Amino acid sequence: MILVGVDAMGGDFAPAEVVKGVNLAIAKNKEIEINLYGDQDQILKYLIPHERVHIIHTPDFVDMGEKDPIKVVRHNKSASIILAMNDLRDKKIDALVSGGPTQVIMVGGYIIVKRAEGMRRIALAPFIPSPDGRKRIILDTGGNVTLEPIDLVDFGRHATIVAKTLLGIDNPKCALLNIGTEPGKGREFDKEAFKLLEDQKEFNFIGNIESKELFTTEADIILQDGWTNNIAIKSLEGTAKTMANVLKKEIMSSLWGKIGYLFMRKNLERFKEDFNTLKVGGAMILGLNGIVVKSHGSSNQETFFQAILQAADLVSKDVLNLINRQ
Amino acid sequence: MILVGVDAMGGDFAPAEVVKGVNLAIAKNKEIEINLYGDQDQILKYLIPHERVHIIHTPDFVDMGEKDPIKVVRHNKSASIILAMNDLRDKKIDALVSGGPTQVIMVGGYIIVKRAEGMRRIALAPFIPSPDGRKRIILDTGGNVTLEPIDLVDFGRHATIVAKTLLGIDNPKCALLNIGTEPGKGREFDKEAFKLLEDQKEFNFIGNIESKELFTTEADIILQDGWTNNIAIKSLEGTAKTMANVLKKEIMSSLWGKIGYLFMRKNLERFKEDFNTLKVGGAMILGLNGIVVKSHGSSNQETFFQAILQAADLVSKDVLNLINRQ
Repeated sequence: MILVGVDAMGGDFAPAEVVKGVNLAIAKNKEIEINLYGDQDQILKYLIPHERVHIIHTPDFVDMGEKDPIKVVRHNKSASIILAMNDLRDKKIDALVSGGPTQVIMVGGYIIVKRAEGMRRIALAPFIPSPDGRKRIILDTGGNVTLEPIDLVDFGRHATIVAKTLLGIDNPKCALLNIGTEPGKGREFDKEAFKLLEDQKEFNFIGNIESKELFTTEADIILQDGWTNNIAIKSLEGTAKTMANVLKKEIMSSLWGKIGYLFMRKNLERFKEDFNTLKVGGAMILGLNGIVVKSHGSSNQETFFQAILQAADLVSKDVLNLINRQ
Repeated sequence: MILVGVDAMGGDFAPAEVVKGVNLAIAKNKEIEINLYGDQDQILKYLIPHERVHIIHTPDFVDMGEKDPIKVVRHNKSASIILAMNDLRDKKIDALVSGGPTQVIMVGGYIIVKRAEGMRRIALAPFIPSPDGRKRIILDTGGNVTLEPIDLVDFGRHATIVAKTLLGIDNPKCALLNIGTEPGKGREFDKEAFKLLEDQKEFNFIGNIESKELFTTEADIILQDGWTNNIAIKSLEGTAKTMANVLKKEIMSSLWGKIGYLFMRKNLERFKEDFNTLKVGGAMILGLNGIVVKSHGSSNQETFFQAILQAADLVSKDVLNLINRQ
């Protein structure tokens, strides 16, 4: 049995969507047991009671707009996410899923769960939406504004294990996000990182890629600092959103467009789903002494359902031990 | 009369599309005279001879894939772009338009045309495609991988003059591209740049914006280093291209989609044009002792036509003197 801790109070639509996601996950996977951390009265409004679901009651939780993550982690010890992180550290649960504020989860990772041996930094590693059906991991996107070049080697090693086990890729390809594909491009950081990545023999480094290739690259893992990846991913998200809005406006601007829409409504819905960031799964926090999956703040029940299965999958495939055994 | 120098040999479809663009510009604006730098025989294949167009013949040109811009600028003195830059420095022409390799134009800017007084760096400043019809300038995108914070203040001052004169905006809004909107976000560079931008009184700094707002921000001018803007803009371009491809594939994947397409073909063409980077005009090189407009490498005749008019407009509005008089 795999015991997954779920922060019932994390996410813009918590606890309703979280608890509904728990109901789905429990029904789907008979090997999962779930600890739900949060306000019992609120949880019970949505929970389908089940012998494999246990409520760890606490009235406290972290606000989604929290601006001082360090203070929360140090002083709000009865908040749902903090209780869950303590249980993860104490091995009372096998993995943790939360849709709470990223920085609180990152800081809690450093302070409570703690880093795996030899890791200088931890990384938030989401998947890029994949219209081609191929999942790509990008890291760090979690607020390591600056890194040392060697950190990218550590991240590449961890992400390679995840891509192998979770995605079933034989020899995952790692690339460095850069402003050109030739070696020697970029800042001093990138030139140094390139050399270190090329020299190591533990995983498959294929060189530089540019940000215009994020949807199409042959790479399975994309490495950069949190600053650069934040700029790249938010540009991608903003463009996707703007294009969807403009497309709708252009179609609805004429009668012929509206008639055409009646015919291709399903095609356009599929198009929208191809770029839905909520459908690709949760972001993993790599480099910790425990498995943490961060679900998007705007997650719905389907997203939480997927994140819980993903966390259980990471446990059953023994990813943590595979990483530490290297 | 405004004398614009045009590099006939710069661009993926040179000289054909360049010369056709010249034909259009000469017909459109009676105040323009043009020096066309390049191979006379090739130019004459496409040129509609006109008393206001003069060919400066040279068989040499710079390859679009040139990897060593400094060598080209120092040693290939008879290449079309280099001849044109020399004429710009010597005030034999009022402005220069080229679709040649960005790095050759930037290096030629530093070495031949030279920087305006007090400028530490020069910046490539293109417009972002504008589905909302509003032009936004983003700089630097030209290869200043790292900058000093004070450079962004210089760039903001120059771009403000351009936005005022060329775009007719009364009090242009400048923003810093960052990973969050609150002050204090980002790298040390960004924190320092934010302070300097906030403290200066020469132009209108409105604070941080995120890369998801590139299409929708109220800012007219977006400031960052070349590394960050390259990552942001190429992510935007790659996303736009992928989405257009996926949309087409989804529509054509079913009979109903194809029928719908017949009705909304015009709407979808307008949608495509909304994101066409070739339609927003050329990129300006700011910080030089001369007006240089860099047209996209894949420019067609319409793009060159627009870039030539844009260069003439910058001359007639006396932008260089307005900047230097500050």
